[in-house]
Parts: sequence; C-alpha cells; structure tokens
Amino acid sequence: MTAGGCFITFEGIDGSGKSTQARLLAEAMRGRGHDVVLTREPGGSPGAEEIRSLVLEGDPDRWSAETEILLFTAARRDHLERTIEPALAAGKLIISDRFADSTRMYQGLSRGDLRALVDQLHRLMIGREPDLTVLIDLDPDTGLSRAKGRQGHEERFEDFGIDLQRRMRAGFLALAEEFPDRFRVIDGNQSLEAVTADVLATVEAALA
Amino acid sequence: MTAGGCFITFEGIDGSGKSTQARLLAEAMRGRGHDVVLTREPGGSPGAEEIRSLVLEGDPDRWSAETEILLFTAARRDHLERTIEPALAAGKLIISDRFADSTRMYQGLSRGDLRALVDQLHRLMIGREPDLTVLIDLDPDTGLSRAKGRQGHEERFEDFGIDLQRRMRAGFLALAEEFPDRFRVIDGNQSLEAVTADVLATVEAALA
Repeated sequence: MTAGGCFITFEGIDGSGKSTQARLLAEAMRGRGHDVVLTREPGGSPGAEEIRSLVLEGDPDRWSAETEILLFTAARRDHLERTIEPALAAGKLIISDRFADSTRMYQGLSRGDLRALVDQLHRLMIGREPDLTVLIDLDPDTGLSRAKGRQGHEERFEDFGIDLQRRMRAGFLALAEEFPDRFRVIDGNQSLEAVTADVLATVEAALA
Repeated sequence: MTAGGCFITFEGIDGSGKSTQARLLAEAMRGRGHDVVLTREPGGSPGAEEIRSLVLEGDPDRWSAETEILLFTAARRDHLERTIEPALAAGKLIISDRFADSTRMYQGLSRGDLRALVDQLHRLMIGREPDLTVLIDLDPDTGLSRAKGRQGHEERFEDFGIDLQRRMRAGFLALAEEFPDRFRVIDGNQSLEAVTADVLATVEAALA
C-alpha cells in the first residue's frame, strides 16, 4: 500500500461517527505530511453530487431499490473516474466517507435481498475495492440517538428505525468477516478521543 | 402478441422521422380502438425524465460513456417499472420512441466499443425486449439535413456528424439482422405518407 496512492474508506451505521473520524484522520495525516483527498459518497465529484441530489432529495420512495442501485453506481463510477483514480495515480491518500460497502448494506440489505445484484453491478462497472476499510462499530441505540441529535442532516437513511439499524450493524460486521484483508473494526462506543486514537493507530499500522 | 399488451419501439438515426412515425402510429391505432401509451426514451416516466435532463443538459462531455450507460439504464429501469410494465399488464399497446437498441448504438457504438458492456447491463437490470421494433432506415445525408432543419431540438446526438451517422445506420441494420424476429426495416427515404402506410401495414401484420 505504500507504493503509489492509498484508498481508505470509512463505513458504519448512521451516527457511528465515521464522518467525523474520516475528517479527523484526514487532518492527522496531513499533519504527517501526506497529500490527502477527503471525499464522500454518494457524491465526491461534481457529477456524482448531482446524482446524489437526484436520489436523496424528494420522495424517498420515488425510486425502486434497483433504480437507486443504478443511480448510486453511476455516481460511484463518476467519483472513481474523476476523483479517486486520478488521486491514486498521483500517489495521494484518499479518505472516503462511505463507498461500495454502503451500497452492499443499504440497497443490498435494507431494501430487499439485492446483495447479489449489487455485487454483479460492482464487478461490471466499478471493480475497485479500498486498500483499507475502517468500520466504526457502534451499538445502534447509541447511533440512532446521536444521528437524531444532529442538525440539518439528510433524513433519508436515519429514518429506517432501530430494528433495521441492528440488522445493518450485523451486516457490516459480516462484511468485515467476508473481507478480512481490508476491513479493520474499531469500537465506536468509546470516547471520541479513544476512537480517533484507535483509527490513527490502525491506519498507521496498515500503511507501515 | 395479441394476448395481453404489446410493446412496439421505433429506432433509427436522427432525422429518420421515427418520432413522427411513432406519433402517427399511436393516432392510427387509437382510431382502431386500441388503448395506446405513447412514450419515449430517454425518459417516459417522471423519474426517467429527470435523469434525461441530467444527462442531456449541460456539457455533453461531463459524463464518461460508462457513467452515461449507467444513467440511461437507471432511466430505462424507471421507465420500465413505472410506465411500460404496468401498461403491458393492463393489456395496452405501448409505442416507444427509442428503447434499449438506441443505447446499443449510441453508447455501445458511437462512444467506443462498449456494446458488450451495454448488453451485460441490459441483461442484469432490464431484461425486457420489445415485441416489435420498427427501424426507419434512412440515408444519413438526408437524415442530417432533416435534423438540422428542426427548431429547438436537443443537439446532443445530432452533432456527431455525417461519418458517425453512416456508421450508426450500418449499426442499426446489423442489429435488425441480429434480432430478425422482432425487427422490421422500413424505407424512410420515401414520402411521409408512404412511410406511414408501410409502418401501419407492418404493425397490423405483426399484431394479426
């Protein structure tokens, strides 16, 4: 992972603190002299951000799960071509708040048993997996109350309720077991500072 | 094709007159008592029309061919779910100005050798083929001058130039040979009235 760029993703249920941790890691790595690109999904490039708006604004039921998977895959393809691949080619460190694992969970698990379809589409149109995926694992009851406390957040994913969040947590942990080479699980129930320290230690070990 | 609904598509290069012929066929079939749904691609449902705007408005080079294929497939999935399949289930006659064959040509042929990718994505996410495809075959020099004479048309496809239009014509004729069961080729170099009469005779023969 030290030759050329490195692609790190953060995953986890809503309220797990992954967006905060992605930002803090970006700051820490910049402080260590890395050329860092902090990005997010859905979005992360101008075109992908337009597709994000198309999917997340308006009635959440207006797209079927299958159409939503296609739109998110289109956004990911644009993000990959315009942001991730050029940064990797330039030897940069890319840190993304969510990537394909979120689609495996949100569209593949929560909107029906579409995981196989998500995977087929990923192989066909995306291909790329992160070098390292940091899963912030959190008790869903804590995560939901954190998410509801945020101001101005998009409610698209937070409204799924506690039962689904429990299934999502189990799903993310199962993904970590499915891809042990690239997944690292961090205990998100700790204090912010402890989680941040764990993330940094994990990333530095992976980059070493 | 007489049991349940029937799905007819019109294909052809720009300026071939297929949009006019689709409309005239819809009128003729309504006059014969058919319950007709006249639709178009990209678009044909509220969500698909939004995706159409996203792709066709703005800089035509802002999407890669692969992202464009994903966006058009998302639009087609929505069009299929919201417009075509419900109309077929209700026993209606659906007439669409363009469908998947246009993606096979425009994205699969004109933007690189992506036909295999278009086909894989079609099998995975769409599946449906028309019962009948009417190809309005026209000499590209005639087609281009007709397209340029239209007011207020989207210039996205017309700007490809005469060499590409010749390749597209050959590509559509090759598609007709690839799918002989559903394709019927109409000579679009005739007068409007002669083309209209040929289309109606072809459709009535297919429905008989």
